[in-house]
Amino acid sequence: MREGFQSDLQRLTAQLAEMCDAAAAAVRHATDALVHADLVLAQQVITDDDAIDAQRARCEEDAYALLALQAPVAGDLRRVLAVVYCAEKVERMGDLAAHIADTARFAHPEPAVPGDLMPTFERMGRLDAEMAERVATQIRTGADGFAELRQADETVDTLHADLLSAITGGDWPHDQRAAVTAALTTRFYERFADQAVSVAKRLDFANTGDLPE
Amino acid sequence: MREGFQSDLQRLTAQLAEMCDAAAAAVRHATDALVHADLVLAQQVITDDDAIDAQRARCEEDAYALLALQAPVAGDLRRVLAVVYCAEKVERMGDLAAHIADTARFAHPEPAVPGDLMPTFERMGRLDAEMAERVATQIRTGADGFAELRQADETVDTLHADLLSAITGGDWPHDQRAAVTAALTTRFYERFADQAVSVAKRLDFANTGDLPE
Repeated sequence: MREGFQSDLQRLTAQLAEMCDAAAAAVRHATDALVHADLVLAQQVITDDDAIDAQRARCEEDAYALLALQAPVAGDLRRVLAVVYCAEKVERMGDLAAHIADTARFAHPEPAVPGDLMPTFERMGRLDAEMAERVATQIRTGADGFAELRQADETVDTLHADLLSAITGGDWPHDQRAAVTAALTTRFYERFADQAVSVAKRLDFANTGDLPE
Repeated sequence: MREGFQSDLQRLTAQLAEMCDAAAAAVRHATDALVHADLVLAQQVITDDDAIDAQRARCEEDAYALLALQAPVAGDLRRVLAVVYCAEKVERMGDLAAHIADTARFAHPEPAVPGDLMPTFERMGRLDAEMAERVATQIRTGADGFAELRQADETVDTLHADLLSAITGGDWPHDQRAAVTAALTTRFYERFADQAVSVAKRLDFANTGDLPE
């Protein structure tokens, strides 16, 4: 049974890593859809989000089955519960990517945000995707990439704050709609990065037993 | 042991109900702070949020202890895990209320949003608070108030959508900063309501065993 538990847990964490890959792909594609006003790609991200939701539900059901059948304790219990916690966060990352795609879809055929902001959104999208991929690697290899993750999150926070300042700073050259769309969109990117950090923290807790702040 | 488990579980769900009360108070006070540009009250909400965070951590630790010591299965397992899930959502409700308070604090001594929008924000704040209180009642009495909760959430969604339309509709009489602040603030209210619905759904799942969509 002990061996059965460890291989079940391994399967469970592999599912979580796959979800992170899917979230990374989602935010990459959503950003491409945003930057290129690509309706087909935007629609694809929104459709694909159902698959991430389904992965989360399966992950959770499998975790519940594992808890009920094997009643793990201490570190093993923490690791199973961490997967449940993280799966929900990664599902949220997928939702946020879908919101970005939806923003592009809603504005189509116009670009959703002004051209001069596109490089910033591209950068936030790349950072978000890399963070999700880094978490996937952390899950698969146990590598500790927390410092890099935290740094990427800080960069996203700074880009987000700078963008909000630019929008509200008084010399914004675009209209109201562009201001509001840009403000909400940058927040989606910022929240995506926050979730990635939450996941990494929780995985760390699963290993150390110290609840993250 | 069986009896011990049930009373422990009861204590755990009572903690969750208290957290919901605290989140309701937080969004009520944050809304007052927003509407009256009340710096002291805003500061209070932000400080009080630490207590909600601490409640969440305690709730989670107690749930883990219960799982490890009693290894509940089936419905009991679901109920314990539901508390962990919900505590995190309610903590997020507190965070969103703190964001609203922070918006009021940042703008002080100016009002954060234009006076003509205040009635809408007041209404959203009242709906959010009532939703959190309804969830607390659901936890305490087992009463099924899901239909009313869903209806309140739809009203919040409509107010949110109408507000975004008004901001971006072309005849917005205020400046850019007011537009962006109002757009982000209305989203905080909308997300608060979403979390309340998530909590109610999860509590329902804990009782029925059917995972919410």
